[in-house]
Amino acid sequence: MTSPAVYADSGLFVCFEGGDGGGKSTQSRLLLDWVTGLGHRALLTRQPGGTKVGEEFRRIVLSPETGDLSPRTEALAYAADKAEHVDAVVRPALERGEVVITDRYVDSALAYQGAGRALDVDEVEEVMRWATGGLRPHLTVVLDLPPEAGLGRFEARDRMEGESLDFHERVRDKFLSLAAADPDHYLVLSARDSIEEIHAAIRARVAPLLPHAVAGIDAAVAP
Amino acid sequence: MTSPAVYADSGLFVCFEGGDGGGKSTQSRLLLDWVTGLGHRALLTRQPGGTKVGEEFRRIVLSPETGDLSPRTEALAYAADKAEHVDAVVRPALERGEVVITDRYVDSALAYQGAGRALDVDEVEEVMRWATGGLRPHLTVVLDLPPEAGLGRFEARDRMEGESLDFHERVRDKFLSLAAADPDHYLVLSARDSIEEIHAAIRARVAPLLPHAVAGIDAAVAP
Repeated sequence: MTSPAVYADSGLFVCFEGGDGGGKSTQSRLLLDWVTGLGHRALLTRQPGGTKVGEEFRRIVLSPETGDLSPRTEALAYAADKAEHVDAVVRPALERGEVVITDRYVDSALAYQGAGRALDVDEVEEVMRWATGGLRPHLTVVLDLPPEAGLGRFEARDRMEGESLDFHERVRDKFLSLAAADPDHYLVLSARDSIEEIHAAIRARVAPLLPHAVAGIDAAVAP
Repeated sequence: MTSPAVYADSGLFVCFEGGDGGGKSTQSRLLLDWVTGLGHRALLTRQPGGTKVGEEFRRIVLSPETGDLSPRTEALAYAADKAEHVDAVVRPALERGEVVITDRYVDSALAYQGAGRALDVDEVEEVMRWATGGLRPHLTVVLDLPPEAGLGRFEARDRMEGESLDFHERVRDKFLSLAAADPDHYLVLSARDSIEEIHAAIRARVAPLLPHAVAGIDAAVAP
């Protein structure tokens, strides 16, 4: 049932990945503002979540009230979230030619549920690829940080953050190895650089990938 | 990632399958009463549901309030429910040597999400086998009924019952073809027979499968 990797042929799909505390929210928001400032239609979303039912899955997998879950239950709940998110939000926006920016995607499942939970990563990948119909981001930005730095920023707020340092080391290693295996589709940045340095590096990498037809620019050159 | 079929080597795992309105609840309860009356430890449970988080998945997939879901979302939510149910309830009870009776299992996913929703049934099967670690029932009882008879018994109460007659015809055909392909592990009965006739046929098929060590009987022969 291996789903081949699929890259949307319209729009631009950018994901932010990495451990907690690395600035994904800040950088995805800055990227959204920059892209929309250039006149592109863009959408900022997140996984898990981003749909009504997805927010229910998010609560189930992240709320400490859920308690212990079988690792496969957790992986499959994340997969269900991804299926809905891609089908109802991401793919329609890409088909409209928009820039879709998401805070976490399939790599988080491979890192947290695969490497972290010590499930078979290849099997988790097959499930996630099936869930998403194989849709891959054009670019994944990994904001890399040693877990002790990211976790030290706050008390554990959810079921993932409460895991051991060893768990988060496996998660980080997985993000880095996925990036190393496919440099054309990844940008790894140190989350310890300044916000502006990181944003500038992301702009430089995203600029040539932006869709050519930009509403604002088209309007500017119209007679 | 194909998970091989696994049959528990202790306990007895019996599933009831078939469309709604065929008497699964009544017959599973009668079987439970008969089995416990013989001195066996037994458990009656259901899918989706049967665990705390499973009841949340059940609400998501069945509540009309959920509205439309991507077919893959629905299948993966059912798979997440199955993973938790098998891991937390079914397998531990079988390992204790108990009789586990469940109202619906993997075949319902193949029938409703595979055949009904027109997903690729082989792919749905791979996902469900992964979710359950390949655990199969020793016996699946299919209570067969033409869908127009079952659906006519009440107004649609959930997202599945509200589907078209054609959907339910595909579901029924799938249950029957799964049973025909593996007669050693299936018993197909007409849900139009009387409750007592059906129960008698189930007793006759289950009796030789019951675990040998029965608490009540052991106690009776103890010195």
